[in-house]
Amino acid sequence: MSEQSKMAGRQSVIFQNPPCILGRSSVAGQKEGNGPLGSFFDYIEEDPYFGADTWEEAESNMQRKAAELALKNADCKPQDIRYLVAGDLLGQLIATSFGIMELKIPMFGIYGACSTMGEAMSLASMLVDGGFANRVLALTSSHFCGAEKQFRFPLQYGNQRPLAATWTVTGSGAVVIGKKPDNSEGSVLIKGVTTGKIVDFGVKDSMNMGACMAPAAADVIYRNLRDFDRSPSYYDKIITGDLGYIGQNILFDILKEKGYDISEQHMDCGIEIFNDETQDTHSGGSGCGCSAITLTGYILEKMYQKEWNRVLFVPTGALLSPVSFNEGDSVPGIAHAVILETEG
Amino acid sequence: MSEQSKMAGRQSVIFQNPPCILGRSSVAGQKEGNGPLGSFFDYIEEDPYFGADTWEEAESNMQRKAAELALKNADCKPQDIRYLVAGDLLGQLIATSFGIMELKIPMFGIYGACSTMGEAMSLASMLVDGGFANRVLALTSSHFCGAEKQFRFPLQYGNQRPLAATWTVTGSGAVVIGKKPDNSEGSVLIKGVTTGKIVDFGVKDSMNMGACMAPAAADVIYRNLRDFDRSPSYYDKIITGDLGYIGQNILFDILKEKGYDISEQHMDCGIEIFNDETQDTHSGGSGCGCSAITLTGYILEKMYQKEWNRVLFVPTGALLSPVSFNEGDSVPGIAHAVILETEG
Repeated sequence: MSEQSKMAGRQSVIFQNPPCILGRSSVAGQKEGNGPLGSFFDYIEEDPYFGADTWEEAESNMQRKAAELALKNADCKPQDIRYLVAGDLLGQLIATSFGIMELKIPMFGIYGACSTMGEAMSLASMLVDGGFANRVLALTSSHFCGAEKQFRFPLQYGNQRPLAATWTVTGSGAVVIGKKPDNSEGSVLIKGVTTGKIVDFGVKDSMNMGACMAPAAADVIYRNLRDFDRSPSYYDKIITGDLGYIGQNILFDILKEKGYDISEQHMDCGIEIFNDETQDTHSGGSGCGCSAITLTGYILEKMYQKEWNRVLFVPTGALLSPVSFNEGDSVPGIAHAVILETEG
Repeated sequence: MSEQSKMAGRQSVIFQNPPCILGRSSVAGQKEGNGPLGSFFDYIEEDPYFGADTWEEAESNMQRKAAELALKNADCKPQDIRYLVAGDLLGQLIATSFGIMELKIPMFGIYGACSTMGEAMSLASMLVDGGFANRVLALTSSHFCGAEKQFRFPLQYGNQRPLAATWTVTGSGAVVIGKKPDNSEGSVLIKGVTTGKIVDFGVKDSMNMGACMAPAAADVIYRNLRDFDRSPSYYDKIITGDLGYIGQNILFDILKEKGYDISEQHMDCGIEIFNDETQDTHSGGSGCGCSAITLTGYILEKMYQKEWNRVLFVPTGALLSPVSFNEGDSVPGIAHAVILETEG
């Protein structure tokens, strides 16, 4: 196969030697542990500070735990990992910088807001398929308290949350992506990726991020289906990151206008991770950790059980900062799609 | 050549089909234009606001200008570029998100503090050599006023700057990296990269970032020389990003302890870009834009003129945020090395 043929359509990549998920981990906070997916997570921490003195250090500790568990699950040591591709929501990625420093792995820091897990897995897969690494660790995290402090109000302020608001997930998910082992039966491969563009519909409401991100999710799902000439039914599930209830409706509407009905296949991590009736989370979960631990805890488990064999995983991000928001800018979105398929 | 052999030593990559720099641009502020390298920059903007109302929007406008000029220099349109790899210093990369949105290019947002140009060029080169793209745009920026507001004090506060402090460069540099053209005589190729780890010597002084970053620069230069079994004299120049005068001394000391004397080959973009005697910039320039425009304006020009044929380009970053600094954390460093060589 020529190298040229790795490029599929306008925005997608098809792997010649699809990389394999060799290990995974999900670390969650207590609220997430009490939610509908709680039993799927590897580790649930009852202390919201994760033994630290600040919310930022708490998130760093959570990331370190997720990295350690993923390495253990993949049966490898930090020195077996050639690159780390990681990021978080905090300004200048401080949760990541201080979280994974001790691993001493060459690092690419990335920022894609809540789409980070999709970006990390896309780059990690390309580093492996491109022949630059045998194993790459892709990870991300978010922490409710750190995110509220960063983006909205300190918790002590006790602000009311509108019904359109989502609840930032406290969680960190990590995967070790590497070359397919000789016996890959039952494993999950990354068959391709579709990399998203920034899409801005001019929505300015940081308390309604589902509406900000839905156009970007629609755009990347549409491109994936077009680039591979597939109908939505090719996938058992098309799973967005954290659109929530409002974003899901907008996603369906945009894709229907483009001729695709994905309502049969669609699932949203933000809708699944909390019970909005009993957990007071309004429009659902959000944050880098939302799609990350739903993938590493729940989605991959469903795939290993062969309940789902083809999944399009589409973490979604809202590109805002407290500064851009206060200066009256809109909240553009971005989303990255990863094609996961079971083997054998 | 087998794919395996793309990995050199512990942290380096050697390209099978070295990607080529197809286009470049440098956009600078007035102070940079008045500095020793001023005549090398493509475009110097006299308005510090770049026609905008806020410092963040100013930086976005500067990035957009750099992207447009690099595309023009490479004689291509946005739709000829398969990926954009870009980032900046601001929290949640807002200069980048709002700067390059209109280009509608699939994007990987990255954060490596002032090492961003090295990270962007490393990933862009791997995307091209890996067969995932024919052309990738790598770009970054920094703006003095936005950076002071983000990391230190608003300009109106008029704080005094210690002599160890560096001056954030207002500038944006971009390169189009792509497959080597049939006639590549006189062009500059990217022969390999060495990806850095986070290195923390425990320095806590955000006004002395050279000291924070020097250990990371030393680490990645040492690994590059070891991975390729080279002496410093292999390179005509070994060029760090923004260590400044103090960081340079520390860099020399650490590498001498490891058995390497790079004082003959070393140059630091932060030292070159301003005249510290007449421009009151103390320890030198810094910021993502510092190494970026020194590369795209000055270094590449020297290479096209064949004055330098082998350059190790090592942008250096200090990983801090206002939050991590105020919480008493140290300032770890990271650096990424890119091997540039002239062809023919």
